[in-house]
Amino acid sequence: MSAIAHRAPRARRFARVVTATGVALLVTACTPMERTGKMQDPLSQGDLSQVAPAFARYTSQTVIDGLWKWPQLSARDRSIVTLSVLIARNQTIEMAFYLRLALDSGVKPAEVSEMITHLAFYSGWGNAAAAAAVARHIFAERGIGTDQIPPADIDPLTLNEASERQRAQAVGENFGLVAPGVVQYTTDVLFRDLWLRPGLAPRDRSLVTVSALVANGQVAQIPYHLNRAMDNGLTQDEASEVLTQLAFYAGWPNVFSAMPVFKDVFAKRPT
Amino acid sequence: MSAIAHRAPRARRFARVVTATGVALLVTACTPMERTGKMQDPLSQGDLSQVAPAFARYTSQTVIDGLWKWPQLSARDRSIVTLSVLIARNQTIEMAFYLRLALDSGVKPAEVSEMITHLAFYSGWGNAAAAAAVARHIFAERGIGTDQIPPADIDPLTLNEASERQRAQAVGENFGLVAPGVVQYTTDVLFRDLWLRPGLAPRDRSLVTVSALVANGQVAQIPYHLNRAMDNGLTQDEASEVLTQLAFYAGWPNVFSAMPVFKDVFAKRPT
Amino acid sequence: MSAIAHRAPRARRFARVVTATGVALLVTACTPMERTGKMQDPLSQGDLSQVAPAFARYTSQTVIDGLWKWPQLSARDRSIVTLSVLIARNQTIEMAFYLRLALDSGVKPAEVSEMITHLAFYSGWGNAAAAAAVARHIFAERGIGTDQIPPADIDPLTLNEASERQRAQAVGENFGLVAPGVVQYTTDVLFRDLWLRPGLAPRDRSLVTVSALVANGQVAQIPYHLNRAMDNGLTQDEASEVLTQLAFYAGWPNVFSAMPVFKDVFAKRPT
Repeated sequence: MSAIAHRAPRARRFARVVTATGVALLVTACTPMERTGKMQDPLSQGDLSQVAPAFARYTSQTVIDGLWKWPQLSARDRSIVTLSVLIARNQTIEMAFYLRLALDSGVKPAEVSEMITHLAFYSGWGNAAAAAAVARHIFAERGIGTDQIPPADIDPLTLNEASERQRAQAVGENFGLVAPGVVQYTTDVLFRDLWLRPGLAPRDRSLVTVSALVANGQVAQIPYHLNRAMDNGLTQDEASEVLTQLAFYAGWPNVFSAMPVFKDVFAKRPT
Repeated sequence: MSAIAHRAPRARRFARVVTATGVALLVTACTPMERTGKMQDPLSQGDLSQVAPAFARYTSQTVIDGLWKWPQLSARDRSIVTLSVLIARNQTIEMAFYLRLALDSGVKPAEVSEMITHLAFYSGWGNAAAAAAVARHIFAERGIGTDQIPPADIDPLTLNEASERQRAQAVGENFGLVAPGVVQYTTDVLFRDLWLRPGLAPRDRSLVTVSALVANGQVAQIPYHLNRAMDNGLTQDEASEVLTQLAFYAGWPNVFSAMPVFKDVFAKRPT
Repeated sequence: MSAIAHRAPRARRFARVVTATGVALLVTACTPMERTGKMQDPLSQGDLSQVAPAFARYTSQTVIDGLWKWPQLSARDRSIVTLSVLIARNQTIEMAFYLRLALDSGVKPAEVSEMITHLAFYSGWGNAAAAAAVARHIFAERGIGTDQIPPADIDPLTLNEASERQRAQAVGENFGLVAPGVVQYTTDVLFRDLWLRPGLAPRDRSLVTVSALVANGQVAQIPYHLNRAMDNGLTQDEASEVLTQLAFYAGWPNVFSAMPVFKDVFAKRPT
């Protein structure tokens, strides 16, 4: 008996969202004037069927009407995972569709804004710049103004000083002489600034980070960040289903390389 | 005495193909209307010489008139490897040229269609979607209709039940509790569905998979899939020359990281 | 007391360059006709603030007015590192801005040309082809003609025969039977041709290579090339600050995976 068959859709709110966006699947909202880079435009479901009918069917049945509806992970979390993959891998072509889906699934514009900023540090400055250009377009399309976006200067969350001191000491002892600039920026800008911005909850910031790590095959960095994610409230069941979502959007090989690391982190955590 | 000097071109059919496509090297067939994203258009050989004459010469002499003509691997297989790299790394700009070259080298439209579907799972959903948009354009340009494309539903190849049961059991024992969703989809959708689609022979499906793994530096996943490729009929000499093709298209570092793994797989196979 | 606070800007020439280019930050010089792929155009600093004000502030304060001005590494070297990252990861959207900045920071057109050719081999043929298309555009914009570009055929630098024989022997013994084609091209085309082209100094060629390796997470290939870089004149302090530059442009995870390898290489070199 297939476990997949048992993955009954319970997330009714999401079902409505998917129905609403279903017809627009993979279709951009570009005007004709904008659609000139034709070969790089995403295809409609109908056009997709002209080229790869099996891929079109997997997309509609297995992914959109299957994966996205399983209750093991909310559609909001799935959107955060998927958007993180696309930003971390600079896949701008698909980004518009999934950014709209994220907003429709309960990810706030403020959270999108913070995700982009966060991934500047965790996947590279150019990735965030490219994502910002797509977000600018979608925000304009939806009339999302700066009143919905966190300002640059903002009251930070309270830092766990003991935990941060321990982290900084370990990294400083290990790499302080190898790369003092990296070590200093990691403390001053990442852990005492970026991670304390309240526009994206620490649990979600961790979800973004872990998704980006798996998406780029950076397995060596998973243990610290998966533990941090679970300290920040991500459950083991959620982390497990994040891997399912990542299998489709970051590819099976990245997930098969990440699974032994997840297994090891799960096993070593106090229960 | 250089082994390269000994790489005498014997593949005459391919020589004609390259001559025919040579003048179009790296030139798209876009109409002026479509060429607006100018900085992202591939250059003609002449334009390339304005910017990087050495790169232009390596492209024409070392790669097109050299590498592609060596008989150690057919032009068809080289096309499958190269197209797999471009799809797996989302390099849409170069894809049109190499998709046309693939069709000219004996890769069937049906096989292109299945490659895209296959790489949705092995490199990520967004990669396949971007590739499908390029393929749609080339198929239209060549008048390739859905009669040449495998439908979504199709009689599957016969499954090797014993081998698949062994694979599923090993993965289930290892990761069944860590990521039940991944494990279940791997069995139900990948190995009992995708891999059995007859539009792309198992040997070629493996060639696509191994190429994608090397192209993205996913060395941990190479042993299983290289063994599977050789079980499916890829010879050691072919696998070896796949590395040469990958050196140019996925870069030397990825191949130097893959060579120890290939060496180990070769050494451990029963002869 | 923060080490960052101590990173006093001394590079005055660069300060002028940044002031001059500051207003153009992330803005392309495209004509309206070329700006049709709108969602993929980089944003101005003002537009960026509409979407991600914190990212905009980090870009201007932390990166452009901070990182780029620290004297630990010249703006020219920072440009080489950054451009290498963008080419090695095929991030064409941001490339125009950083290519202009490189030319403004003292990287010669001849060096840009050789970087593209070099990265064809070290990151993949398609990456170089995409970069060449961007460079063609910028060279035309600045009136840079072929008189400033190294020709394909050129008197090579003198080869260190002893060192190259040792490298070739080690690689041949290890991989000669596994991938004879790769081994032969590595000797004939890379180390007896590409690396001897005088348009890019060996130290800079190494800087490009190491940057590309870190940018793509290819840690297994770092020891050989970092040692070669330092043999070619890159100092440990420079290598250390290369990591800081890479943290921002290739992302923190790639740098955290590279730091233990850099540490090990530093420790094992004769002092």
